[in-house]
Amino acid sequence: MTYEYDKPVADMTPGDQIEGFYILSDIQVRTSSAGSPYVSARISDAGGVMDAKIWNYAGGLEEEDNGRVFKLRGEVGQFKGSPQFSIQRIRPADDGDHYDLEALVPCAPIDADKAEEELRSMVLSMKDGDYRAICLAMLDRCGKEFFAMPAAKSFHHAFLHGLLMHTLNMMRTADFLAELYGDIIDRDLLLAGTMLHDFGKREEFALSKLGLVNDYTPRGKLLGHLYICAEQVAALARELGADGEKSMLLQHMILSHHGTPEFGAAVVPQCAESELLSYIDLIDSRMEIYAETLGDTPPGQFSARVYSLDKAIYNHGGGR
Amino acid sequence: MTYEYDKPVADMTPGDQIEGFYILSDIQVRTSSAGSPYVSARISDAGGVMDAKIWNYAGGLEEEDNGRVFKLRGEVGQFKGSPQFSIQRIRPADDGDHYDLEALVPCAPIDADKAEEELRSMVLSMKDGDYRAICLAMLDRCGKEFFAMPAAKSFHHAFLHGLLMHTLNMMRTADFLAELYGDIIDRDLLLAGTMLHDFGKREEFALSKLGLVNDYTPRGKLLGHLYICAEQVAALARELGADGEKSMLLQHMILSHHGTPEFGAAVVPQCAESELLSYIDLIDSRMEIYAETLGDTPPGQFSARVYSLDKAIYNHGGGR
Amino acid sequence: MTYEYDKPVADMTPGDQIEGFYILSDIQVRTSSAGSPYVSARISDAGGVMDAKIWNYAGGLEEEDNGRVFKLRGEVGQFKGSPQFSIQRIRPADDGDHYDLEALVPCAPIDADKAEEELRSMVLSMKDGDYRAICLAMLDRCGKEFFAMPAAKSFHHAFLHGLLMHTLNMMRTADFLAELYGDIIDRDLLLAGTMLHDFGKREEFALSKLGLVNDYTPRGKLLGHLYICAEQVAALARELGADGEKSMLLQHMILSHHGTPEFGAAVVPQCAESELLSYIDLIDSRMEIYAETLGDTPPGQFSARVYSLDKAIYNHGGGR
Amino acid sequence: MTYEYDKPVADMTPGDQIEGFYILSDIQVRTSSAGSPYVSARISDAGGVMDAKIWNYAGGLEEEDNGRVFKLRGEVGQFKGSPQFSIQRIRPADDGDHYDLEALVPCAPIDADKAEEELRSMVLSMKDGDYRAICLAMLDRCGKEFFAMPAAKSFHHAFLHGLLMHTLNMMRTADFLAELYGDIIDRDLLLAGTMLHDFGKREEFALSKLGLVNDYTPRGKLLGHLYICAEQVAALARELGADGEKSMLLQHMILSHHGTPEFGAAVVPQCAESELLSYIDLIDSRMEIYAETLGDTPPGQFSARVYSLDKAIYNHGGGR
Amino acid sequence: MTYEYDKPVADMTPGDQIEGFYILSDIQVRTSSAGSPYVSARISDAGGVMDAKIWNYAGGLEEEDNGRVFKLRGEVGQFKGSPQFSIQRIRPADDGDHYDLEALVPCAPIDADKAEEELRSMVLSMKDGDYRAICLAMLDRCGKEFFAMPAAKSFHHAFLHGLLMHTLNMMRTADFLAELYGDIIDRDLLLAGTMLHDFGKREEFALSKLGLVNDYTPRGKLLGHLYICAEQVAALARELGADGEKSMLLQHMILSHHGTPEFGAAVVPQCAESELLSYIDLIDSRMEIYAETLGDTPPGQFSARVYSLDKAIYNHGGGR
Amino acid sequence: MTYEYDKPVADMTPGDQIEGFYILSDIQVRTSSAGSPYVSARISDAGGVMDAKIWNYAGGLEEEDNGRVFKLRGEVGQFKGSPQFSIQRIRPADDGDHYDLEALVPCAPIDADKAEEELRSMVLSMKDGDYRAICLAMLDRCGKEFFAMPAAKSFHHAFLHGLLMHTLNMMRTADFLAELYGDIIDRDLLLAGTMLHDFGKREEFALSKLGLVNDYTPRGKLLGHLYICAEQVAALARELGADGEKSMLLQHMILSHHGTPEFGAAVVPQCAESELLSYIDLIDSRMEIYAETLGDTPPGQFSARVYSLDKAIYNHGGGR
Repeated sequence: MTYEYDKPVADMTPGDQIEGFYILSDIQVRTSSAGSPYVSARISDAGGVMDAKIWNYAGGLEEEDNGRVFKLRGEVGQFKGSPQFSIQRIRPADDGDHYDLEALVPCAPIDADKAEEELRSMVLSMKDGDYRAICLAMLDRCGKEFFAMPAAKSFHHAFLHGLLMHTLNMMRTADFLAELYGDIIDRDLLLAGTMLHDFGKREEFALSKLGLVNDYTPRGKLLGHLYICAEQVAALARELGADGEKSMLLQHMILSHHGTPEFGAAVVPQCAESELLSYIDLIDSRMEIYAETLGDTPPGQFSARVYSLDKAIYNHGGGR
Repeated sequence: MTYEYDKPVADMTPGDQIEGFYILSDIQVRTSSAGSPYVSARISDAGGVMDAKIWNYAGGLEEEDNGRVFKLRGEVGQFKGSPQFSIQRIRPADDGDHYDLEALVPCAPIDADKAEEELRSMVLSMKDGDYRAICLAMLDRCGKEFFAMPAAKSFHHAFLHGLLMHTLNMMRTADFLAELYGDIIDRDLLLAGTMLHDFGKREEFALSKLGLVNDYTPRGKLLGHLYICAEQVAALARELGADGEKSMLLQHMILSHHGTPEFGAAVVPQCAESELLSYIDLIDSRMEIYAETLGDTPPGQFSARVYSLDKAIYNHGGGR
Repeated sequence: MTYEYDKPVADMTPGDQIEGFYILSDIQVRTSSAGSPYVSARISDAGGVMDAKIWNYAGGLEEEDNGRVFKLRGEVGQFKGSPQFSIQRIRPADDGDHYDLEALVPCAPIDADKAEEELRSMVLSMKDGDYRAICLAMLDRCGKEFFAMPAAKSFHHAFLHGLLMHTLNMMRTADFLAELYGDIIDRDLLLAGTMLHDFGKREEFALSKLGLVNDYTPRGKLLGHLYICAEQVAALARELGADGEKSMLLQHMILSHHGTPEFGAAVVPQCAESELLSYIDLIDSRMEIYAETLGDTPPGQFSARVYSLDKAIYNHGGGR
Repeated sequence: MTYEYDKPVADMTPGDQIEGFYILSDIQVRTSSAGSPYVSARISDAGGVMDAKIWNYAGGLEEEDNGRVFKLRGEVGQFKGSPQFSIQRIRPADDGDHYDLEALVPCAPIDADKAEEELRSMVLSMKDGDYRAICLAMLDRCGKEFFAMPAAKSFHHAFLHGLLMHTLNMMRTADFLAELYGDIIDRDLLLAGTMLHDFGKREEFALSKLGLVNDYTPRGKLLGHLYICAEQVAALARELGADGEKSMLLQHMILSHHGTPEFGAAVVPQCAESELLSYIDLIDSRMEIYAETLGDTPPGQFSARVYSLDKAIYNHGGGR
Repeated sequence: MTYEYDKPVADMTPGDQIEGFYILSDIQVRTSSAGSPYVSARISDAGGVMDAKIWNYAGGLEEEDNGRVFKLRGEVGQFKGSPQFSIQRIRPADDGDHYDLEALVPCAPIDADKAEEELRSMVLSMKDGDYRAICLAMLDRCGKEFFAMPAAKSFHHAFLHGLLMHTLNMMRTADFLAELYGDIIDRDLLLAGTMLHDFGKREEFALSKLGLVNDYTPRGKLLGHLYICAEQVAALARELGADGEKSMLLQHMILSHHGTPEFGAAVVPQCAESELLSYIDLIDSRMEIYAETLGDTPPGQFSARVYSLDKAIYNHGGGR
Repeated sequence: MTYEYDKPVADMTPGDQIEGFYILSDIQVRTSSAGSPYVSARISDAGGVMDAKIWNYAGGLEEEDNGRVFKLRGEVGQFKGSPQFSIQRIRPADDGDHYDLEALVPCAPIDADKAEEELRSMVLSMKDGDYRAICLAMLDRCGKEFFAMPAAKSFHHAFLHGLLMHTLNMMRTADFLAELYGDIIDRDLLLAGTMLHDFGKREEFALSKLGLVNDYTPRGKLLGHLYICAEQVAALARELGADGEKSMLLQHMILSHHGTPEFGAAVVPQCAESELLSYIDLIDSRMEIYAETLGDTPPGQFSARVYSLDKAIYNHGGGR
């Protein structure tokens, strides 16, 4: 019997004999009609997911094994028209194993180090000492954690470094528009608000062992990431002795960046920079949703209805 | 010439000769068609308001005289069917003057000292040390200022001690409902959230010299009194070393007490106590609007449309 | 073979041998792939429900057997991870059987007799003869039937005596608030409107044999329980020679108690008592939904999304 | 001095000397700057309205003179670019006066007797004895009063016999559509619901002495004309021993004829006839608003914004 | 073995042996657990639909066979309580086959030729040469195709000649109302707008081989049938040298016939004819939905919730 | 008597003697109480507006003089606290007069020639021949007229060359975002849609003699500028033989650029470029409203409520 090693889930077809490292999730122990226990679960890598079964289950899997990497051997079959992976051997990956984590977990299509560098240099270009100091302090304390995180559970940028990619794209647009509307825009306030706006997600997301968003924390649901972030910035500004008006403006930027109460804004934008921030956020999140959806839609066709857009979208296939 | 002294504005009729202390507002210096300067303004006391003119104006009034108490002498005339006060003599009230401030400024129909005492004793009845400590610290630091304030600019309880009266009424209802729904309600959390919920109005309202709400502060508009209060409670809880979960629950109570985003809630109520708090607040503010409106509506008649209710209301006149 | 007798459905596990009285519902006669008839149904008691099968079905069950009590013998198995009851013997319960109806049908956690007594004494405390007479006449004619009924099909108080428990809780709150807002509230009108407000549900609900709400009647859907109740009160008031204005006010209380047209109010509340009634109804129905949901939610966790609240709720577990 | 007699208000121009019968309204007694009393009021006839003054007022007018017919003599002047009528002589019209009431009060452009006859013959054409009997009883008891009334205070058909014209137009359309959709429409139910649907306005409108709608009654506001009508039909049906299901359907037609809760329906239409009735009502009220608006709009122009339509409308001027 | 020939799908019961012509759709080739290919599909005629299987599948079916007519032989079985057709022999219908297409495809219950004739005679009755010429040109170029089409994918008139039946019903009502409101309605404009209003559906619908609506075209989704129709009428009017104002009014009728932006109108109706057209369209589409729903609802019962009405409807069963 | 010549209206104060060229509007001929005719009107220049009177009016002004330039001499007085201009001499400006039109009519703060050049060079940079050809043809035929026009009647860019400034700003942002989201954006489609999106305003606006937006045309109201533009592009594309799919995409861009039906979009954006266009339009119109509003708002203050934003905005005064 010859096995294919670490074959991407998206490429597997019935009949394949597989061996390799995959993530196991949705683990449920059940009893067959014949009375013997079996496991129903799912295997996945960065690009795909498939139902899986362990028919001869001798125990050993637990609640906290969900989201962990396992070494598996098995065969791809079919059930009701969909492929299904029958696991014949299974063991948790351990420190001695050499597998490619990036092949298992979806990751932003960017060079994370360069992105952080670009973002930091934009912060350093701010002329206002208070805004710059607050941003640098936030980067020093929470940047590493923040930039590794996805930007969402599922809607957009739901991959490692998603918040970094999302924030950097927004910083670039903010920089451009601050120039175009230079008569009314305080560039430093706009850049600072843009950099900080999503830092509250650090406490809002409950992450899986591999860094993806599993769920929301009670704190995230009961207070919201806008409030969490604004309150942290208020404390940081006090600690750094920043100007009170500037601290207030930053808090306002963060509290209003969802634009309207229906979309979760605690207050509506009331200055040019907060108005602009809400559009920049909207543009980048929407464009990422389009990118992810168009990737699955053939030219000349409509996608399925996209939940977060409340509509289907068209891939005209032209000019790209 | 005999003058009536300190006659209530609501009782003045054309022909009256008046002397006494009144509040001056809406001061505008104009030029008559004959080219001479005159003053158009309004005089008021706790129960009424009337247009006023100083025809022979020799100067001396300034922007900041709006909302101050003046000693006036003059005569009540009539213009286009409405009474108008012609000021003949005017000087600012000074420290040597003895006038009745409560006759000039509308005030809650309660005994403020007893009300504070009752409210404080309800705080002391809390069994949870953290909630009690946070409430007591807030009372010590900001209670005096807070309890003197009106609860709104115009909609309801727009009089001195309005926040005290509103908060106490709500505490009584909270206490009753905490008992009725004792199976699911944490009485201490409900009482603490109720006592604290409007403290952010301290920084949201810009007060006149006599303590009424003149306007909203930029901080109040850009951040909202819910956020301001929650952030202050968070800082206070940290300072007092209170339990983190309890601090979070109090912040949630405050952030959600307007019930829905359309009415300004930063998050929706997600526990039984915050759900209840939003109804208790609604009931007391609505009942006060009814009380103020019914006072101006004869039995068997409808009021004019009440802006904050978006409807007219009926005074059936029965059973009271 | 030893059987467990009348074991609660919620406690049954695969392998149990069971005998006892249960309610049968959702009865469907089907044909197996082998061509023989079998029955798919559900068994339930006051605390649980389970799928059931009669594999060797010799006939005898009919449409109207749904919702009836049967004596069953059988074994608990498992199908697709869920338990399933295989019925081996079955016969309808008859008059000679001694089973505990309260164990089979969910019932309000109150002493119904005491509750009725308390409610009646509140009615007797009304000073206004017209309101008191209308309430007493309604109690005499429809009270027995009404107080046995659930308050809803599924949202809240969906158990026997639900309307009694719901009405009594509301009467207590009405009594408290009538005192607190005594300046503007006609206590008798508020209590009378509260007592009467849901009596239209008598004609709106189609009950099962055991008294639970199976469905809505055509009359209930085409006219609504608000109209049905108001029209009945109008007729009763005429019959009793009550004052026309008071009858009109009671009809208004009933027609408006859902608060806004979106929630089914035929007119909006336009007097203080009808405004208050709509909040009292909201509070008691919401608190019961919280109570029922929190009972299924572990401390520190969120519930599943609650349909009638349009959100998930948090069990903080504190102070109770 | 030569006077023009009973000149239409819409034709008066500054300089005219007028004598004749007009309606006086908005009567206010005021004091001039010289201290003498004068009257500010308005005069009107069926086609126009103008401000009026009695400069030498010797008393005698009272609150209840509003809306009465007076014999006036005076001159048309001008004030701030608008014409103004100076009353020199005035006395109430009395029984001996011969004036043309139809010239004073706006009236539907129909032959009221023929219209009633046509409507009654459509009722007599119903085959169902119950629906016919209920309609005939309503006509006998309330028809005379109802058919004289306007259909609204201002939106549409706000003239004498307005309800007759509106109801008859709707009956004609109902008859046509009952034929077109004969497969699913019960003609008798549709015609009966159409004839009865607005009878509740009898108790909703407070009429002036000349029969126009001055205001709404408390009963009209607190219960709504849909409820008032449905309840009256319920009582009538009981009295006549009509079939209960038919009575229920008629009540449903009436309660739902505003289509949706936002527009005041107590329940939504749930049978084909009630669905159709709501559209027939909409069509006739909208077409009358168009007719009244287009009459004031030159071809090729837009009207001012029409409040009840929430838009301006265009008079293309073609083909009529 | 005796077969029943061309038995209607709605009449088939388990055990039937069937031969005849049916439409095949939803064709999916799958692999059984035993590894052999089989086909899962659906068979249908004008009145019913049923799941079908080809267990011994030797290949030959393709994507484009969906929606085609096949000659089938097989047996009706049962799976999970639902009937299932096992296909034993299958071949595409060819030119030599004689089957009744109307028995296979749902068709409007009208005489299409007479309907077209009536509609054309109404067009010829228009007095305005421009409107008449535009309508006749549209009929000549696109009438044949248009009148064969269904009016919708599923909501109403989803059968052959549906647009013809819908348009003719609306023309009749337009003609009646143009007479009733003759003072303000330009009959020719109303009739022309009515006749043309849905012609844009020709390019919006993607039809199956048998003429039913399979899906919407990208052009239909990206531009909408209102725009497509208005633009075609604009081009036609230019080509025919029609008056520019009349062309504009027709375009306005078409762009606004959905009444409000929420329902897809590009502009709101702003003249009497466009206002009326939107109601006439609403009435006919709603009445057809009622007719189709009531056909499946027993008297005295409510239907299931109808998606396009957002409510269930009642079959009172009376008077028809 | 010394006159100040062409003094800006915004700088005039009571007592000034003025001579110069101003625009006259709102001309109304009235009769004084003394019976003599006078004129009430308004004078304006690019930066201000003031009430004006001609007390000794000898005739000569007509309806069409509204919005024309006149040479005036007069004195600034005061009425009810506001300045008022008494015109002593007046004559229309004629060809021999040398006045500064830009001082009289508000104009975009840009170099119009350079702006057109930049815009044209961006069009020339498109690689797709069809999109480029359509844009160039539109520029050639309508560009001169279009680029001179204001972008709105009052909301934003309500000055000469407003559409040019608005379109160019949007083109710059479109160019930047086409690069940032190059993976999914067809730059040519985005630029072409952006350049064309407001061309329908040419037929929607009724301009004054000096080129400002006086009103909307009937065609503009009955069809909307989105439809007008899309239909023109469709005709142009056909004439130029452009690819049908590209023409459809351009029409979709134009029809959807208001984003949602509530804001006037005929269809919702369904491809990445149309989604982006709607945000780019929103950003530029909003930023211009902010710029115009902040110009009138002192630092540290809130503006009055801005109608088109439905909120007041804050001038923090920082960093610019």
